[in-house]
Amino acid sequence: MTDAVTYELLHKDRSTGARRGRITTPHGTIETPVFMPVGTQATVKAMRPEQVAELGAEIILSNTYHLYLRPGSDVIREAGGLHKFMNWNRPILTDSGGFQVFSLADLRDITEEGVGFRSYLDGSKHMFTPEKSMAVQEDLGSDIIMAFDECAPYPADREYVKNSLERTTRWLERCKKAHKNVEKQSLFGIMQGGMYDDLRKQSAREIVDLDLPGYAIGGLSVGEPKELMLEVLDKCVGYLPDSKPRYLMGVGTPDYLFEGVERGLDMFDCVLPTRIARNGTALTAHGAVNIKNAKFERDFTPLDHECGCYTCTHYSRAYLRHVFKSNEIISSMLLSNHNLYFLVQTMRKIREAIENDRFAEYKEEFYGKYYGHL
Amino acid sequence: MTDAVTYELLHKDRSTGARRGRITTPHGTIETPVFMPVGTQATVKAMRPEQVAELGAEIILSNTYHLYLRPGSDVIREAGGLHKFMNWNRPILTDSGGFQVFSLADLRDITEEGVGFRSYLDGSKHMFTPEKSMAVQEDLGSDIIMAFDECAPYPADREYVKNSLERTTRWLERCKKAHKNVEKQSLFGIMQGGMYDDLRKQSAREIVDLDLPGYAIGGLSVGEPKELMLEVLDKCVGYLPDSKPRYLMGVGTPDYLFEGVERGLDMFDCVLPTRIARNGTALTAHGAVNIKNAKFERDFTPLDHECGCYTCTHYSRAYLRHVFKSNEIISSMLLSNHNLYFLVQTMRKIREAIENDRFAEYKEEFYGKYYGHL
Repeated sequence: MTDAVTYELLHKDRSTGARRGRITTPHGTIETPVFMPVGTQATVKAMRPEQVAELGAEIILSNTYHLYLRPGSDVIREAGGLHKFMNWNRPILTDSGGFQVFSLADLRDITEEGVGFRSYLDGSKHMFTPEKSMAVQEDLGSDIIMAFDECAPYPADREYVKNSLERTTRWLERCKKAHKNVEKQSLFGIMQGGMYDDLRKQSAREIVDLDLPGYAIGGLSVGEPKELMLEVLDKCVGYLPDSKPRYLMGVGTPDYLFEGVERGLDMFDCVLPTRIARNGTALTAHGAVNIKNAKFERDFTPLDHECGCYTCTHYSRAYLRHVFKSNEIISSMLLSNHNLYFLVQTMRKIREAIENDRFAEYKEEFYGKYYGHL
Repeated sequence: MTDAVTYELLHKDRSTGARRGRITTPHGTIETPVFMPVGTQATVKAMRPEQVAELGAEIILSNTYHLYLRPGSDVIREAGGLHKFMNWNRPILTDSGGFQVFSLADLRDITEEGVGFRSYLDGSKHMFTPEKSMAVQEDLGSDIIMAFDECAPYPADREYVKNSLERTTRWLERCKKAHKNVEKQSLFGIMQGGMYDDLRKQSAREIVDLDLPGYAIGGLSVGEPKELMLEVLDKCVGYLPDSKPRYLMGVGTPDYLFEGVERGLDMFDCVLPTRIARNGTALTAHGAVNIKNAKFERDFTPLDHECGCYTCTHYSRAYLRHVFKSNEIISSMLLSNHNLYFLVQTMRKIREAIENDRFAEYKEEFYGKYYGHL
């Protein structure tokens, strides 16, 4: 029996931990490191799926919690799965719903069995368990499914984090047992352990023992200082096997992408590019730009002179400012397209840099322009 | 000196007043009768311009009043004109700003000179005159520019309507005098006269005497009963020359398109298809459909089985219902695309029917399906 998702390590950067790889899934291959646009409610916001593919995205992430509540994973199963429902034929990764249950639900109740919560839509009562999360993700039919875990808050005391990670391991064992469809979907485990090195090591050992097709690092970027996060990350990577893809969950600002790649991470996702787009902020080679700025009123040059995206090749800053200020939907469409293109193409350049053993140089170039400008 | 915009009458339907024609403009030709999507603020809402072209639209309408106030017509002039600013290389028609000044502005003051009004954006004071409207539309660089007129309200007494239409004629004379750029833009006159046949005749005679490249019928669909509108329309058309295009302003529900074409009208515009799209209503061969309807929850068939648009070939009713209920931007994108396609393609079928002398039969077929269903 072959795993649905496999990883091939292609090349290691000479002077950093960065690595080039390839993930193969039932819906196609993914060159890594990879940035995954987020399509929470079965749509990457303000984008047609073909446009997401055109800008170079090879995989998107979608959210189990949201789709379970609306339209219901049974509806998506009956539609023929999430790929068909949302018109996206490339790979999809779904999270387990755990993170949203913990972060969005007002009322929740954690037991060994799972987590009871109330819907953010209508207050109705629900229960997520490892088995339920697997069943829902099977309905969705995503290529990569994530284990149901608890992402401990920050700060949290050692005792809480230890209990939480050990329960997360027990939940992972139940996920693995419940997950039947291994030739169509692959289950990734999630390392927890908060900011405690020995607990990270314990969590890693426990999940790696289960020999899964991939592993994620969870519980980071939850409010801790950046230095602490990088310190924890430095150690975490070493606890995971070289032969499997490593996914840093929910992280996607340009600096975190570079820092993550440098340490050997392969997969990243973040709502940032589309969310800030809707607020009028663009990511450019020279840093973030607020399109509302009055100085753009008569600026007939492209948003980013170095960018080849649809937005930058067809519209001026003056136009983008006008449609943003006029609350026109095309504003979100154009800025989302640009921001996703920027991150996806930055990741493509990162991959090229790794292939040429010059990741560190590329990082320095990028930072010089991106942060030098701010 | 050649007019920028010319009209050629290609064929008259054997049994109705419907006619096939072609309008030539500096930005390309337009097959008539034509439905013009509206791009009020330099964007057809929720659509990329290429998508508007792909669905078959040959001309769009944009609004002088809105663009004058934001971003300012000087900005658009500096950008190289509206076509370049908004990335639309086909013909554009702009209205004069008159209709919005009368309908949107809270405070307005009509004199022989023009209309003073306050901006709906910031309350600032402005004055539109025939000369000002021409100057603003010259900044925009649209192919067809409309005369600055007063659209009298309904109901209005004879005396008011007569004074109003006579002033509209005097304003038209001033527009013609102020309009210099005749080889790049063509000025269309607007017939007024309310519901009074003799005043319609008077208005028509006065504006036709000015020998303009096209004429519009204004002051209809302003709240009067449909029967009255059609009665007035029946007579109005006969007062206009066969050799010039005839534009019925602000009218675009399917029935009005058919009724207008049947009486010899050539051009139509309406915000309806994109506005109702944003509210979750789709126009289909079998009538209007509210996508919110619970019966679509598990309906995995296309919105309109007879439709070949992007939306109908890629998404199910269940998906469209889901994204509408989730307030996702793609809902407006997909339904706007469908509704515009529906009206533009219905107009294409109308043109084919006229060419084959079977407009009346096509109208009957369309009504049977569209209204039979309601």
